[in-house]
Amino acid sequence: MKVGILGPRGTYSEIAARNHFGEKVDISPYPLITDVSEAVEKREVQFGVVPVESLREGSIGETLDALAWKDVKVNAEIVLKITHHLLGTEETEFDEIKQVLSHPQAIAQCREFLRRNLPDAELISVTSTAKAAKQISKDGKHYLAAIGSRGLADLYNLKIIEENIQGGKEDETRFFSLAKKDNEPTGEDKTSIVFYTKEDRPGILSEILQGFAKRDINLTKIESRPSKEALGDYLFFIDFEGHRKEPSVRKALEKIKSKVATLKIIGSYPKIY
Amino acid sequence: MKVGILGPRGTYSEIAARNHFGEKVDISPYPLITDVSEAVEKREVQFGVVPVESLREGSIGETLDALAWKDVKVNAEIVLKITHHLLGTEETEFDEIKQVLSHPQAIAQCREFLRRNLPDAELISVTSTAKAAKQISKDGKHYLAAIGSRGLADLYNLKIIEENIQGGKEDETRFFSLAKKDNEPTGEDKTSIVFYTKEDRPGILSEILQGFAKRDINLTKIESRPSKEALGDYLFFIDFEGHRKEPSVRKALEKIKSKVATLKIIGSYPKIY
Repeated sequence: MKVGILGPRGTYSEIAARNHFGEKVDISPYPLITDVSEAVEKREVQFGVVPVESLREGSIGETLDALAWKDVKVNAEIVLKITHHLLGTEETEFDEIKQVLSHPQAIAQCREFLRRNLPDAELISVTSTAKAAKQISKDGKHYLAAIGSRGLADLYNLKIIEENIQGGKEDETRFFSLAKKDNEPTGEDKTSIVFYTKEDRPGILSEILQGFAKRDINLTKIESRPSKEALGDYLFFIDFEGHRKEPSVRKALEKIKSKVATLKIIGSYPKIY
Repeated sequence: MKVGILGPRGTYSEIAARNHFGEKVDISPYPLITDVSEAVEKREVQFGVVPVESLREGSIGETLDALAWKDVKVNAEIVLKITHHLLGTEETEFDEIKQVLSHPQAIAQCREFLRRNLPDAELISVTSTAKAAKQISKDGKHYLAAIGSRGLADLYNLKIIEENIQGGKEDETRFFSLAKKDNEPTGEDKTSIVFYTKEDRPGILSEILQGFAKRDINLTKIESRPSKEALGDYLFFIDFEGHRKEPSVRKALEKIKSKVATLKIIGSYPKIY
């Protein structure tokens, strides 16, 4: 079984994929989330694991776009506790750190620590935490540090200068497993949908949500996102409890379909949280 | 009048601030969105201009956080058309470009162009488009390019290698002007609020939205964002038409207040789009 991930190796997406599919799974790293979803679309891989939402930073736009526009379904959600550490080489001295490299999401998550402890350090965003670790390991300069997981410290032979530098408590990130088909009902499922309302009138969204409320379906997330046609023109992403094959969910979805311009059922999958 | 912006100089936030407050305004650049909102909070500046939402990439999490948690109001929205160009020094040759520097949002917006035309180039995210332009101008290497505005090309003496490289049509970005007070009614206003519902039961959000629908108040945006307590625990950001001092809006807000755990009125301001 081949699983595409947001690469390179050593990122949290790989950890999420191995947690879900087992250690022995065959991992194919791709440079962008869009590439992972296209690999699933073209059946280069059977599944693709991409981050969809972080506790601290919210939704990942590139993933929402892939869910809306690519011919892929979600067949599982995977939740990972994420702990960021400040990593350095043997040469790195805390007082001499001038540049900190990491993925922009990780930098944002450690914003408070960086502002308080390294206010003058330049924050350099690279495309993954793994790339940051690899680069400082290669450069070996005393003024360089990276932000990443303990796994990366092992992989690139780095030391942990400071543990748990993300703001407050641990961060959790939710990943989606993408596939050509979603999952069969398990009795405790969630469903993700995206729709676009052509009409811009008061109450349309309230009517749609009422269709869920009337059938006692609990919403777990709602998000509007620019449709890319014009600012103020939105796609709506909704997650709710239940499987699309359950009668009450089926009725709610039929009702929505009659009210909106386009509706895509992104998939039903076992509920994790 | 002193206006804080997300720095450094030459970023789109500065352009937005000058468009709104006039060319002669006294600009103070800050390194992070959080810093701009704190400068307004502590009255170091009278206003702060920060990006809140891009047509392509959606909401900017750091700004939503500042709106929810800092003691600031929104007194104006500013909408800017954003056109990204591929910038280089005199030495840069298109066929030799190996590294492209920019803000992660700009890189994401030019994702399609980069994938098709520079698939092997390393994408290096820095904290602003201005920083990217400054850095390639300083380094002067033939394999370096940056993504940014025409203004940056002028400011750092760079050439435009390729125009309009953002995906599809122009991008628009919406900025908020932050202040200690929001704006008085103008007759055509919008209001932004954020609330947190303690109860997790089907229908609570639908009930809240119905309070708007019943009074013919049009919602222009809705977004849930992790509350940072636990994944699946959300703050809701809603923008709607009308001023908080209008009787129907006041009634809708009272109704919401009785249903939610916390409600913050982020501000009422003239409607731009």
